[in-house]
Amino acid sequence: MIGGGRGAFIGGVHRIAAAMDGRAELVAGAFSSDAARSRASGADLFLDPSRVYGSYVEMAEAEAAMPPARRLDFVVIVTPNHQHFGPAKAFLEAGFNVVCDKPVTFDLAQARKLRAVVRRTGKVFVLTHNYTGNAMVKQARELVRDGTVGSVRKVVVEYPQGWLADAVERTGQKQASWRTDPARSGAAGCMGDIGTHAENLARYITGLEIDQLCADLSTFVRGRKLDDDGNVLVRYKGGAKGVLHASQICVGDENDLNIRVYGTKASLAWHQEHPNELVVKFADKPRQVWRRGNGYVGAAAKALTRIPAGHPEGYLEAFGNIYLEAFRAIEAEVEGRAIPRGLDFPTIDDGVEGMAFIEAVVRSSRLGARWVRPAAG
Amino acid sequence: MIGGGRGAFIGGVHRIAAAMDGRAELVAGAFSSDAARSRASGADLFLDPSRVYGSYVEMAEAEAAMPPARRLDFVVIVTPNHQHFGPAKAFLEAGFNVVCDKPVTFDLAQARKLRAVVRRTGKVFVLTHNYTGNAMVKQARELVRDGTVGSVRKVVVEYPQGWLADAVERTGQKQASWRTDPARSGAAGCMGDIGTHAENLARYITGLEIDQLCADLSTFVRGRKLDDDGNVLVRYKGGAKGVLHASQICVGDENDLNIRVYGTKASLAWHQEHPNELVVKFADKPRQVWRRGNGYVGAAAKALTRIPAGHPEGYLEAFGNIYLEAFRAIEAEVEGRAIPRGLDFPTIDDGVEGMAFIEAVVRSSRLGARWVRPAAG
Amino acid sequence: MIGGGRGAFIGGVHRIAAAMDGRAELVAGAFSSDAARSRASGADLFLDPSRVYGSYVEMAEAEAAMPPARRLDFVVIVTPNHQHFGPAKAFLEAGFNVVCDKPVTFDLAQARKLRAVVRRTGKVFVLTHNYTGNAMVKQARELVRDGTVGSVRKVVVEYPQGWLADAVERTGQKQASWRTDPARSGAAGCMGDIGTHAENLARYITGLEIDQLCADLSTFVRGRKLDDDGNVLVRYKGGAKGVLHASQICVGDENDLNIRVYGTKASLAWHQEHPNELVVKFADKPRQVWRRGNGYVGAAAKALTRIPAGHPEGYLEAFGNIYLEAFRAIEAEVEGRAIPRGLDFPTIDDGVEGMAFIEAVVRSSRLGARWVRPAAG
Amino acid sequence: MIGGGRGAFIGGVHRIAAAMDGRAELVAGAFSSDAARSRASGADLFLDPSRVYGSYVEMAEAEAAMPPARRLDFVVIVTPNHQHFGPAKAFLEAGFNVVCDKPVTFDLAQARKLRAVVRRTGKVFVLTHNYTGNAMVKQARELVRDGTVGSVRKVVVEYPQGWLADAVERTGQKQASWRTDPARSGAAGCMGDIGTHAENLARYITGLEIDQLCADLSTFVRGRKLDDDGNVLVRYKGGAKGVLHASQICVGDENDLNIRVYGTKASLAWHQEHPNELVVKFADKPRQVWRRGNGYVGAAAKALTRIPAGHPEGYLEAFGNIYLEAFRAIEAEVEGRAIPRGLDFPTIDDGVEGMAFIEAVVRSSRLGARWVRPAAG
Repeated sequence: MIGGGRGAFIGGVHRIAAAMDGRAELVAGAFSSDAARSRASGADLFLDPSRVYGSYVEMAEAEAAMPPARRLDFVVIVTPNHQHFGPAKAFLEAGFNVVCDKPVTFDLAQARKLRAVVRRTGKVFVLTHNYTGNAMVKQARELVRDGTVGSVRKVVVEYPQGWLADAVERTGQKQASWRTDPARSGAAGCMGDIGTHAENLARYITGLEIDQLCADLSTFVRGRKLDDDGNVLVRYKGGAKGVLHASQICVGDENDLNIRVYGTKASLAWHQEHPNELVVKFADKPRQVWRRGNGYVGAAAKALTRIPAGHPEGYLEAFGNIYLEAFRAIEAEVEGRAIPRGLDFPTIDDGVEGMAFIEAVVRSSRLGARWVRPAAG
Repeated sequence: MIGGGRGAFIGGVHRIAAAMDGRAELVAGAFSSDAARSRASGADLFLDPSRVYGSYVEMAEAEAAMPPARRLDFVVIVTPNHQHFGPAKAFLEAGFNVVCDKPVTFDLAQARKLRAVVRRTGKVFVLTHNYTGNAMVKQARELVRDGTVGSVRKVVVEYPQGWLADAVERTGQKQASWRTDPARSGAAGCMGDIGTHAENLARYITGLEIDQLCADLSTFVRGRKLDDDGNVLVRYKGGAKGVLHASQICVGDENDLNIRVYGTKASLAWHQEHPNELVVKFADKPRQVWRRGNGYVGAAAKALTRIPAGHPEGYLEAFGNIYLEAFRAIEAEVEGRAIPRGLDFPTIDDGVEGMAFIEAVVRSSRLGARWVRPAAG
Repeated sequence: MIGGGRGAFIGGVHRIAAAMDGRAELVAGAFSSDAARSRASGADLFLDPSRVYGSYVEMAEAEAAMPPARRLDFVVIVTPNHQHFGPAKAFLEAGFNVVCDKPVTFDLAQARKLRAVVRRTGKVFVLTHNYTGNAMVKQARELVRDGTVGSVRKVVVEYPQGWLADAVERTGQKQASWRTDPARSGAAGCMGDIGTHAENLARYITGLEIDQLCADLSTFVRGRKLDDDGNVLVRYKGGAKGVLHASQICVGDENDLNIRVYGTKASLAWHQEHPNELVVKFADKPRQVWRRGNGYVGAAAKALTRIPAGHPEGYLEAFGNIYLEAFRAIEAEVEGRAIPRGLDFPTIDDGVEGMAFIEAVVRSSRLGARWVRPAAG
Repeated sequence: MIGGGRGAFIGGVHRIAAAMDGRAELVAGAFSSDAARSRASGADLFLDPSRVYGSYVEMAEAEAAMPPARRLDFVVIVTPNHQHFGPAKAFLEAGFNVVCDKPVTFDLAQARKLRAVVRRTGKVFVLTHNYTGNAMVKQARELVRDGTVGSVRKVVVEYPQGWLADAVERTGQKQASWRTDPARSGAAGCMGDIGTHAENLARYITGLEIDQLCADLSTFVRGRKLDDDGNVLVRYKGGAKGVLHASQICVGDENDLNIRVYGTKASLAWHQEHPNELVVKFADKPRQVWRRGNGYVGAAAKALTRIPAGHPEGYLEAFGNIYLEAFRAIEAEVEGRAIPRGLDFPTIDDGVEGMAFIEAVVRSSRLGARWVRPAAG
C-alpha cells in the first residue's frame, strides 16, 4: 500500500475492503513520504518492519527484487491525487499489478500517459470507483442492458455532501486540506473528488457517453481555491439528456450519491445511502423495489452478495466487490494465465474518461458555463 | 367558474378546494364554449340553469347586472392558458374579483397587460400556484425568513412527471391535447405547465430572484410540438446557484415536485408527495422532521391546518389553503374594506414573474442553451 | 348534525367530508346541549337560525314535521359516545337516515338495541370507521379477496398515538376530557377510541373474525380512569393469528394506524400516515408499491379517487369516501328506491362487532389478560 | 473455528466480522464432524492442513498442547445449537477463550452448566447477539440511560422473516433443516432462532427485565415440528409493558428486526434493515433522525464506527463490533492482564437469560398462552 498512513481515510477502507473476503493480505507499504511516520503506520498494522518503506521508489525496487513467491501480487495507491501517477507508473513498470484510488491522476495528460504505461506493461490496473461495486448498481445496469428500461432518455445523478460547508481545511483537517488544494487535488475540487463518481456511476449503469456538457462550478466558501459545488447539464451521445450536480456545501447531507435513469419503458432510482434497494418504476404497473440478496435478482448482483437479503451490506462490502472482481484478473496475471474477458471493474479507460470529464467541466465553467465537448479519451 | 366542464381536471379541483371550508359556494358558470355542453355541466353541478352561461362574455354581463347581494363575489378561471386573459380582463373590468389557474396567461406580454388591468380595477386577483398552499411549504419559508437556514447557497427543485412519456395527446385525451398544443398552451409545454410551479415554489420559499438561467429543453416524444422535458441551471441574484428540472416523460413518476434548499446553517427538503413533512438538516445536530399539525410549527403553518398531526392533509387541502387566504382579500373587497396587507396568496405579480421565467427558458433553449436574463417583470 | 359545535374536532371533519363532493349540504343542527352554544355554532356555520336547535329531541320533532322537500335527508351524530344511542334512535324512528361516529354506542347492549331499531325502521345507518374509506385499504381488501395474498396467516395491526402521554384531560382539553371519562366514553378508553378502528380495519381487509383474544390493557397516566394503552393477542376463526396494539401514550407518534397482513402467497403493508401507498411483498419477486390513482389499481380503489396519482389524498378524502358510498344508499332511501346491494360502508353490524370487541378486551384484561371469546353480535 | 464449513451461513459471517479490522486471523478449525469435509473447508480457507481437525475434541487437545505463542487466542463456535455446549466446555476447560453463536445452548439447564464452567475457568465467553453491535443501537441505549427517553413505558419489538413460509426444510436446505429440527435446534424454532435476538435487543437498549410473559406460538407450515411464528405479551419488572413478535412465515419480509421504545419523555425507533438511523420522537419538538458517524452521536456509537456518516455500515460491521469489543477482553486475558470492566459484549449471562426466555415462551404457549414467569437465571 502506498499512502494510507495514520490520519488517512481511504487507506483504511481499502485495507478492510481488500481483505474482507480472505483473498488478500497486506504485507508491505510505504504509508507516508515521512519514513518515521511510514514505520509507525506499518507497526500499527502489524507488518514486518522490513517491508515498511520510506518511499514508493524504494518499495518498488525492493519488492521487485524479491523472489516471486514472496513478492507482492499487487500494490494499492491511496495517496492524494497528485501522487497517483508516480507510484502507479513505477509499480507497473516494476512488474506489479496496481489498484489505484480515483480520480486516476492529477490531470488528463497524466491519465493518458498512464494508460500508455498500462497498455505497454500488460499489468492489471484497477480504479476504485467503488460505488459501481454495489450489487443493486449492477442490477440497474442489467435492467438497462436487458431492455427493461427501454431507451434511456434522461439521467439525473446527484452527489451532495455537506462536510466542506465551512472552511474545514483551515482547521488542519487532513482530508479537507488536500482536497481543497489545487496543487494536490488537481483542477477541480468537488467535481474531481465526487463529481467524477457521479459521472462514472451514470456511465456504468447506462453505458451512455457524454457528447457535450455545460458546467457551472462555484466556490461558496470564501478563500477556498477549488470548486465546492457544481451543476452540470449534459447531452449524451444518442440524444439522452442529463443533469449532474455535486456539492460539498450541502449542510447536513452526508454522502447522498443517487441516480435516476428514465427510459422509454421504465425508470430506475438508486440511493447510495440505502444501497440494498433499487426502485423500478413503470407507467402501467406497480412500482417495484428490488432488494439485494433475493433469488429474483440477476446474475451480476447475485454474484456479489455475501449475506442474505435483509442483512444490509454497505459501503465497505461494495468496495470489497471491486476487489473481488479485480482479484480474478490479478490472480490470472500472477499465475501467468490470460486475464479473463468481461471482468467487471473500473480500468484505466474509466480513469481517462473521468479525467476528460473533470477537464471538461472545469473548461466549461471557466468559459462562463458554455457547452463544451469532453476531449476524446 | 369559467371552464371546468365535463372532462376537465382542474375545474373539479377548484370546486372542491374553494368550497372545502364552507366559505364559498358555486352559483354560476360558463363551463364550455359550447353552450349545450356548458348547460350539461351546470346541471351536473346542481346549478340554477339561469346562471349557466354559453360564454364568459355573456356571463360577465349578466352577472354584473345583478343586484350586489346576488352577484358573484369572485370568478374562477380554469380554461386552457390561451383563454385566461380574455375572461380575466372581462371580469375584472366588470367589477369582479378573479381567481385564475396558472400560468397566468398565454405569454408575457399578456401577463403585463393583465397586470395593468388588475392595478387599474383594484380588484383582487389570485393565481393558484397551489403547492405554496402546503402548510410545510409555509414552514420552510419561515425557516428561511427567521434565519434558521442561514444564507441560501443552493436550490435544487425538481418536478418529474411521467404521464406524457408516450404520445397520449394523439389518443384524444383532453388534458394532454391542449397542454401539448402551442396554440393553447403557449411557448412552453412542460416548463409552462409544471416548470413554472417549480420556479414559483423555489421563489416562494427562498425569496430569491433569478438573475440568469441556462435552459436545455427537449421534446422526447416524436411529433410533439412543445417541450416535454427541461433542465435549467440557475444563478440567483445575490450569488446562490440552482438547478431546476421538470419533465413529463419520467416514466412512473407521478407528481413528484420536490425542493431542497441549502443554506449556510441548515438545509431543507420537502416533497409534494409527502407534503406533511419537512426535513431540516444541520451540520452538527440530528436531522429534524417537522410535521404538520404539531404545536412546534410556526404561525403560518399552524394557521392553515384543518386536522391534527398524523391525519394527513393532501393536495386538495393545500389548494384550499390558497383559497382560504384569498377569501380574506375577497371578503374585504366585497365588503368595501381595505384589503389587508401581508396576505399570503400568489398574485398577478407572481404571474408576471412566472411568464418571464417561461419566456426566458424558451429563449435560452432556442439559443442553444445559453445564459439569458429573464425580462424584468 | 348533532354535536360538533365550537371546540369539537370530529364535527368539523364530518362537515368537510360530507360536503366535499358537492353532494350534501348542512342545513340544520343541534350542536350542543346548551341552546345558546348551539345557536352560536349554527351562526358560525351560516345556518338559518330557525333550523338550529337546542336539543336533538326538538330537532327530530321539528324536522320530521317539515314537508319532505325541505326535510333533512340524513342526520350526522358526532357527540361523545354516551350520546350516540339517544339521537340515533330518535332520528331513525322519526324517519331519518343516520350517520354516526364510532364507536357506535356506549356499550354492547345499546348497540344491539340500536341494531334492532335500524332493522325495524329500515333506514340507512352509517358508522364512520373512516379509515376503511382509503382507496388503498380497498385495494388491500381486493388483493385478499382475489387470492393474491393467499390464505391469511398473520395480521399485525397497530394504532399508536402519543397525545395522551400526559394528563391532558386535567388541562380542560375537551377532546381528552370526555375520552378519558368512563361516564362518557364507555368501558374502554384507548381501545374504544382507536383500538376499535384497528379491529375494524383488520376485519375489513381480511374478512377474518376474531375467535378469541387475550388483552393486556394499561393505564400509564396516574389518575386516569380508563386504559390509555392495550396489547392484544388474537386468534382468528380459521387459524390465523394476530397482534393488535393501540396506545395513546406513545410520545411523538401522531396517528400511526398501520396494518400488515401476511398470507401464504403475499403480504400487505399499509400505513395511514402515507395512505396513498400499499406495499405488496412476495417471496420470489420484487416488492411492489401500489399507488392510488394509477390505472392498474382495482375497481374499488379506482372508484374512490378524486385526483390523479401523485396528488396525495388524505384523511378528509378517505372520510369523504365513506360518505360518497353512503350517499348511494341514502339517495335510494330518500327517493323510495330499494337500497342497492353491495354498498361499501360500515353499518350497524360493524358497530355491534366493534362493541363486542371492546367488551371482550375489557373483560379479558380484567381477568388478568386471559383468553376470552367476543360475544356473538 | 468449530463448524462453519461448506454450506454453512453464519460461519462465513464470523470469519469476515472477526477479521474485518485486522485484529484476528483464522488459523485452525474443525469445520465439520466429517473429517474429509472439514479438511476441504480448511483448504478453501487457505489454512495450514495440520491445523484442520476432524473433531473439536481433537482440536482442543492439539491446540492446548501447542506453545503459547502459536496457540489459539480464542475459538469460535458456529455449529447448530445442540453442538454449542460440548465444544464450549471443552475449549474453556482447555484454557481457551470462546466466542459462541446464539442461542447459547440447547436448553436452559445446559446454559446454567456452561455458566458454571465459564465462572470456574475465568475465561472470556462471548455470545454473538450481533444486532446489539450496531452503533445506533448503542446510541439508543445511551438515550435511555442518559434520561432522554424518560421512564420506559412500552416496548414493541418485532422480528419478521419470510424465508420459512414454505417447507424449505424438505428441500434439503441446510439452514432450514437444522433450524426446524427439535433435536438440533432445541425446544423452540422461530423463537429460539430470532425471537431471542428480539428479546436481547429490547433488554440491551432498555435494561428492562421480563417479569411475566404470555406467548402464543404457532406452526403454520404443515408437518413442521417447531414454531415458525410467535406473538408474546410482556410485562416488564417495574411496570412497563411490551409486545414481542417474531415470525419466519411473513412472506416477503427479509430480516426486519425492529424496535420501538416509548418513554415518558421521548420515544425511539430503530430498524435493522436501515441500521445507520435512529429516530427519536418527542411530544413537543420535531422528530429527530440520528445518523451514525456524526459528531453529535454519543461515545459508544462513536467508538464503533469505521467510516464517515452517509457511508452505510451494515450487518457485517455490526457483527464486527461485537468482536472488536470482545477482543479487548480476549487480549487482556491472553496477555494475563485483568479483563477491563464495563466491556460491551454479550456474555454467558445474556445466554442464560436468553435460554430462560425461550423456555418461558415455550412453557407459556404449551399452557395455552398463559402468563408465566421466566425462570430466574
